[in-house]
Amino acid sequence: MDALVLEKKGELSLRDVALDETLGPRDVRIKLHTVGICGSDVHYYTHGGVGPFVVNAPMVLGHEASGTVIEVGSEVTTLAEGDRVCMEPGVPDPNSRATRLGKYNVDPAVRFWATPPVHGILRPTCVHPEAFTFKLPDNVSFAEAAMVEPLAVGIHAATKARVAPGDIGVVLGAGPIGLVTALSALAAGCAKVFVTDLSERKLEIAASLSQAIVPVPAKSGALKDRVMAETDGWGADVLFEASGAPAAAAGVFEPLAPGGCVVMIGGQAEPVAYDAGAAMVREARVENVFRYAHVFPRCVSMLSSGAIDVKPLITRTFGFDESVRAFEIAAEAPPADVKMQIELPQ
Amino acid sequence: MDALVLEKKGELSLRDVALDETLGPRDVRIKLHTVGICGSDVHYYTHGGVGPFVVNAPMVLGHEASGTVIEVGSEVTTLAEGDRVCMEPGVPDPNSRATRLGKYNVDPAVRFWATPPVHGILRPTCVHPEAFTFKLPDNVSFAEAAMVEPLAVGIHAATKARVAPGDIGVVLGAGPIGLVTALSALAAGCAKVFVTDLSERKLEIAASLSQAIVPVPAKSGALKDRVMAETDGWGADVLFEASGAPAAAAGVFEPLAPGGCVVMIGGQAEPVAYDAGAAMVREARVENVFRYAHVFPRCVSMLSSGAIDVKPLITRTFGFDESVRAFEIAAEAPPADVKMQIELPQ
Amino acid sequence: MDALVLEKKGELSLRDVALDETLGPRDVRIKLHTVGICGSDVHYYTHGGVGPFVVNAPMVLGHEASGTVIEVGSEVTTLAEGDRVCMEPGVPDPNSRATRLGKYNVDPAVRFWATPPVHGILRPTCVHPEAFTFKLPDNVSFAEAAMVEPLAVGIHAATKARVAPGDIGVVLGAGPIGLVTALSALAAGCAKVFVTDLSERKLEIAASLSQAIVPVPAKSGALKDRVMAETDGWGADVLFEASGAPAAAAGVFEPLAPGGCVVMIGGQAEPVAYDAGAAMVREARVENVFRYAHVFPRCVSMLSSGAIDVKPLITRTFGFDESVRAFEIAAEAPPADVKMQIELPQ
Amino acid sequence: MDALVLEKKGELSLRDVALDETLGPRDVRIKLHTVGICGSDVHYYTHGGVGPFVVNAPMVLGHEASGTVIEVGSEVTTLAEGDRVCMEPGVPDPNSRATRLGKYNVDPAVRFWATPPVHGILRPTCVHPEAFTFKLPDNVSFAEAAMVEPLAVGIHAATKARVAPGDIGVVLGAGPIGLVTALSALAAGCAKVFVTDLSERKLEIAASLSQAIVPVPAKSGALKDRVMAETDGWGADVLFEASGAPAAAAGVFEPLAPGGCVVMIGGQAEPVAYDAGAAMVREARVENVFRYAHVFPRCVSMLSSGAIDVKPLITRTFGFDESVRAFEIAAEAPPADVKMQIELPQ
Repeated sequence: MDALVLEKKGELSLRDVALDETLGPRDVRIKLHTVGICGSDVHYYTHGGVGPFVVNAPMVLGHEASGTVIEVGSEVTTLAEGDRVCMEPGVPDPNSRATRLGKYNVDPAVRFWATPPVHGILRPTCVHPEAFTFKLPDNVSFAEAAMVEPLAVGIHAATKARVAPGDIGVVLGAGPIGLVTALSALAAGCAKVFVTDLSERKLEIAASLSQAIVPVPAKSGALKDRVMAETDGWGADVLFEASGAPAAAAGVFEPLAPGGCVVMIGGQAEPVAYDAGAAMVREARVENVFRYAHVFPRCVSMLSSGAIDVKPLITRTFGFDESVRAFEIAAEAPPADVKMQIELPQ
Repeated sequence: MDALVLEKKGELSLRDVALDETLGPRDVRIKLHTVGICGSDVHYYTHGGVGPFVVNAPMVLGHEASGTVIEVGSEVTTLAEGDRVCMEPGVPDPNSRATRLGKYNVDPAVRFWATPPVHGILRPTCVHPEAFTFKLPDNVSFAEAAMVEPLAVGIHAATKARVAPGDIGVVLGAGPIGLVTALSALAAGCAKVFVTDLSERKLEIAASLSQAIVPVPAKSGALKDRVMAETDGWGADVLFEASGAPAAAAGVFEPLAPGGCVVMIGGQAEPVAYDAGAAMVREARVENVFRYAHVFPRCVSMLSSGAIDVKPLITRTFGFDESVRAFEIAAEAPPADVKMQIELPQ
Repeated sequence: MDALVLEKKGELSLRDVALDETLGPRDVRIKLHTVGICGSDVHYYTHGGVGPFVVNAPMVLGHEASGTVIEVGSEVTTLAEGDRVCMEPGVPDPNSRATRLGKYNVDPAVRFWATPPVHGILRPTCVHPEAFTFKLPDNVSFAEAAMVEPLAVGIHAATKARVAPGDIGVVLGAGPIGLVTALSALAAGCAKVFVTDLSERKLEIAASLSQAIVPVPAKSGALKDRVMAETDGWGADVLFEASGAPAAAAGVFEPLAPGGCVVMIGGQAEPVAYDAGAAMVREARVENVFRYAHVFPRCVSMLSSGAIDVKPLITRTFGFDESVRAFEIAAEAPPADVKMQIELPQ
Repeated sequence: MDALVLEKKGELSLRDVALDETLGPRDVRIKLHTVGICGSDVHYYTHGGVGPFVVNAPMVLGHEASGTVIEVGSEVTTLAEGDRVCMEPGVPDPNSRATRLGKYNVDPAVRFWATPPVHGILRPTCVHPEAFTFKLPDNVSFAEAAMVEPLAVGIHAATKARVAPGDIGVVLGAGPIGLVTALSALAAGCAKVFVTDLSERKLEIAASLSQAIVPVPAKSGALKDRVMAETDGWGADVLFEASGAPAAAAGVFEPLAPGGCVVMIGGQAEPVAYDAGAAMVREARVENVFRYAHVFPRCVSMLSSGAIDVKPLITRTFGFDESVRAFEIAAEAPPADVKMQIELPQ
């Protein structure tokens, strides 16, 4: 079948690949419909790797996906041919200790689409376990469904933060992950979310998403001053670090309230300067998140009920035959778009 | 000053009363603007008591209130004359063990407006501690502010439930407390909330509040069937009992998911039949709530940011001189209104 | 092989049975060493069933067990022939929703030893999944290891209670489950545990286990009075209902402190009278537990490190050929023993 | 009265000082009996300050104390003349936001003994609020009671960690705080606690406290290797950083299990190198603690019931007239003692 293949750093091709697609008894076969382009896909393209994961052999890209079930394994009970679905891209060992504890995302044996050596799904069909494939209600489109994967990061982060209704939130970074995190923080109960970024354009997009999002330019001290001014000097209850910028990560405790929580989402290549004294006098709690677990059905429910609207984040759509071009555009910095998606031929 | 006085069971008068209104150093004096009529106010009027609290002497009614600061004590730092405010009606002993632990609502020494022998605030002015008086942003009206007290019950319940984003919720009872609880559950992250009641009219109002609220008539088995049908047989993550009906309380575990949480809000005169077996096989968690603590500022933030809209619940407003008549209407059953409020002369 | 078979209510025989013991790739074969007699085993014998579980066909009894691995499946990696082990008797569907969430004990598909129609392990050998078989350190005896199963109930209950160090605890009931719960509550941080029972003999045994256990005869009001007297009128932080007695369950909130937690362990045949008012003014949290999950390795660690000592609870040991007699003794009421065990021939 | 005064960095004198000791209505006057020497007392002596707190004027040292009530204020209800007591050294503003939330230790207005400009209690008598003075049972000695303050740090840390029974723990640093933390972690439910330090002598003392404490020399990689070897490669559930050493703090995630918790206790002068990647793949939770809140009565209960024994940590006792000499000995490095105490004349 034809697939979008990262041949090596900087070289993409849309070409035929041979993939094993044996259908197990608890698997389903899916015809892909929409695939979002993630920052990690682009990073593999431009750098040939992400942290410890290095592309040593041609790899199909893509892991944010929706599609239609076209075949089911002999023991599948919850899905049927024709079901519209989205898919969780990481599949753990069901017998590992982490999985049994309900923390399958931290199972070292997880196999995750488009993470070497596992192929992604920018291709016509794939085979996936029933347990990680989720049926879509009629009122959730394929495009929205392909947003469930990035949204899951935000929802998982807001869940870990244990947002209480009426909390004041902060999100550092207004990229796609920062924006889904801001939406998730609001959906999880924040009364207001301050979002900060260096890019004015990104802040404009953030502000357009909700009247409860307050954009704050990323200048020294601006965030702390603004948060303190609007909270009678108390600070924010929860702060999400979604920028991946070392300087931002070093300042996470400054705008934080006593007893507040910091959630580290953005990856960091080097150790971060942790202000132990500032953390201590606030008795801050710090949560670290790695992808997500158990949240895909929740995200689908929230899209369906209207609790969260991700449609404004989908700013550009390409055909599959334009996918190399789509990645070239995505690799240009700074991105003019939030989320770009590719539609497979149906 | 003139006040609405419950002389004894069934007898109200709007008449002059002498009240001690000494202003302490950390107190403020408030000119009342809007006061909501609570079910407990009506119950004191119709029954002469609520549970262990019996009206043995004339008592001013009312505890859901907003107003304007007209004088501040010598040590007050956070409020000034002219500030628009709402007030938390229960004031604990600051030195009690419960208060120091942050659980001041369960302090037995709490003095609560319109709970014998403490007078309420259906009167022109009152004196209240700065610490339990909260400044209103410009975009929160006096009418909305007088809704903070009942809303606080719902927000406290949703906080205790530890709603996770995407949870499926159920609220038993669509009276004022049921409705603010449904709004609170949604604001706290529920993707969808099933609301059940015997009254069709109340269910219509519930359904009008949000597309994520699903009205379900209170017939035997109907709720369980509906919830199970919409959750693939899994059940609801959180259920709020806000009806006070023994039969409803006896069935709280039926529609509940494994590991789900039940929050008991509605008061019960007699012991409830607790289905220990159903609770056990689900490993249900049961939280009991008593009023609220620490949530007034959160509620104000959520009204201001638009996270919650209580305006549709305010269905009728009376002048202070009509207040006896207002209570007579409120005492008629079943109530045609959700929340009735009384405006004091300004 | 010879096994202890419950032919029907009231009739036991030690006789040859044919059992399927196919070894799967992730299974181990175990030679049983010691098997404890549980109250449920006795109840099946005397009543022919436990709640909804009815014995309709001959069933081998026993589920508290230790033994030695004598054969391992082809994919087993953590166990080897000769390993001394204890076994968790309930095996869930690894693909169920409850299991994936880490709550496998509430998976309706769990297959549990000696719960109809699943045979127990009062027999020479059994086959069990590696994932539910736990290696023993040298300093944990087979007899102690066969106590891990009942201890797991107590440790799971104490974990659910989220005991904080220095909490004051109460355990209702001084049977084997009450006693392991008292030990677990102490190990989990309780400074002191009040244990109540109707039997003076059981209270003596309880008191002998630790100087931090305070025995209190189960007379009306005695527990509340004692707890209040020793806590300056504040009450207990956590209470475990392990008696299964309706009257005890109806009074769980009386000795409880504001913000305290009640854990329901004891099964109840009928609905319990839940004192909603007493629960509410304390904002009590109620946890319901069903068996246990994830605690076997923890129990083994605590036995090995000396954090918990279960040896005083093992009061009598029988040979396998005496096992019918052992059940007859166990069925006499009231039991003079705490835990009776049966040793298989080695 | 005579007091031990730090005149300035490096200069101590036992001399008469004039102190305001007005007794308020909710205060008690206490005759001091035993005062422990804390590392911070010594640090003020040797460095003239601790972090932002600088000694600019003569200050009485000492904050770990026990004594006897000799006078009570007019509104005191829970204490009487002759009561033996220990005292919590930090007193917050009862009206602050942090205090009302139950987090009084992070109230910026806390006044803490022997923290400039507040005098300590190495002196014959002091006046203290009833609410922060705790009565001792007969079986808790003055010496043990003066250990409640350091023990409170460990108990607060173990509480924040939310230790579950059977957890595997690690404590970095075997100074007095490290040792009380190890005891607290065990009392809170840890099956086993690995303690690491550079000093062999300190490790010997640690190992002598409990058979469940495993001493590990602080060499590169040794701790991780040992923990992984004893946990089948899974790691520790909870790690307490009590060394204050930057290198130790930088390695906190290495021996940690997936989903594990790190508690930062030791103060750090500079930002710590936070290994964000290691924290992320484990989804580590990090708690920061600042002194303690609400734990003094718990510590007293645990000393009284025998749940914790601090007596082995008290290695040397001086008379008040030897107190300058005691500090000189305490300032010698490395300390040959764990906890030194000073007894006031009675």
